[in-house]
Amino acid sequence: MTIQGTGTARPAGRPRSEKAERAIIEATLDLIAEGMGVSELSIEAIASRAGVGKTTIYRRWSNKEDLVVDALATLKAPLPPLAGVSVREDLITLLDAMRADSGNRRGRCVMNIAMSEADRHPRLTERFVERAVEPRRRALREVLERGVATGELRPDLDVTLAMAILSGTMMWQSKWGPGDLPEDLAERVVDMVLAGMAPPAA
Amino acid sequence: MTIQGTGTARPAGRPRSEKAERAIIEATLDLIAEGMGVSELSIEAIASRAGVGKTTIYRRWSNKEDLVVDALATLKAPLPPLAGVSVREDLITLLDAMRADSGNRRGRCVMNIAMSEADRHPRLTERFVERAVEPRRRALREVLERGVATGELRPDLDVTLAMAILSGTMMWQSKWGPGDLPEDLAERVVDMVLAGMAPPAA
Repeated sequence: MTIQGTGTARPAGRPRSEKAERAIIEATLDLIAEGMGVSELSIEAIASRAGVGKTTIYRRWSNKEDLVVDALATLKAPLPPLAGVSVREDLITLLDAMRADSGNRRGRCVMNIAMSEADRHPRLTERFVERAVEPRRRALREVLERGVATGELRPDLDVTLAMAILSGTMMWQSKWGPGDLPEDLAERVVDMVLAGMAPPAA
Repeated sequence: MTIQGTGTARPAGRPRSEKAERAIIEATLDLIAEGMGVSELSIEAIASRAGVGKTTIYRRWSNKEDLVVDALATLKAPLPPLAGVSVREDLITLLDAMRADSGNRRGRCVMNIAMSEADRHPRLTERFVERAVEPRRRALREVLERGVATGELRPDLDVTLAMAILSGTMMWQSKWGPGDLPEDLAERVVDMVLAGMAPPAA
């Protein structure tokens, strides 16, 4: 390779190719957020959306699955800071982060990947769960276990089942609830599952 | 059309074409149950799975969406008989039907359609919800409203939110739980949401 001594020198870091990579990642996430399944997603569709040639994609990723894994890896699951004072407040904070996600691209990507494809793309699913699902799941478990330890929750609580109830409810609402989830949804869910549906003991 | 007076007379009802139709419907449901999205599903794939020519399909259905609507219409949501004695028992019966469905083709089709495609195939989604989702949703609402009326449930119960908690939890378990859901799952879910996660009042 020769280096041109004149004109627009190309600085280190290859900004032009980085810009293309970013456009490719964004195009991939946009298509997934719009509901295109991984099986259906094509390098053609991504190239067209990103405004690059297919060769530009293949220069960096040898196949679609690797590209999707890299795209999903950019979707970190930001954990909201937990006050750590009451279990009720921390549960509301965690569930409210799920509610907020249902309105943004990150959330739609996570939902669409979570809801499909698991059997057909096991490696992708594994990476996705590890990156975008596990950190929040771990935080939820820790809060519930702390509640059992402090006596804020029942001593015999089935923590795994409690996690399914809280996460499943929020997922259901994101998928089937009104387009704009009510601001106080997380609080209402937490209060109902804490208190139960049976009437309070007289 | 002439009617042959000899040999294998073709009885009314055109069994040969009915057999082909059945094979086409079955192939469509199999592919959906295996996780193929409606967008990805092709007449070619269905014809190949059903062992018929594409022409045979187009003779009966003018497009893929009509075929999928007809295929999904064969998936009735059988409502389990409800004893109508206690709300707890009826909720367990309804949730246990959801658990049982997670292990069969009907349930996998319902889950895969429910989980995707909604925005991209509104007519299909509408027909599907009306046929496969609404009857159970209505039954669940009736049981909860009865519980409020009889005093088995809190007088101030948010019935819509309670439905989301119960259905969301079972959906979450079907999707993310162990392959074989525990036999007593419905009972455990109902008991936890009835009693709540907070410790019983001392």
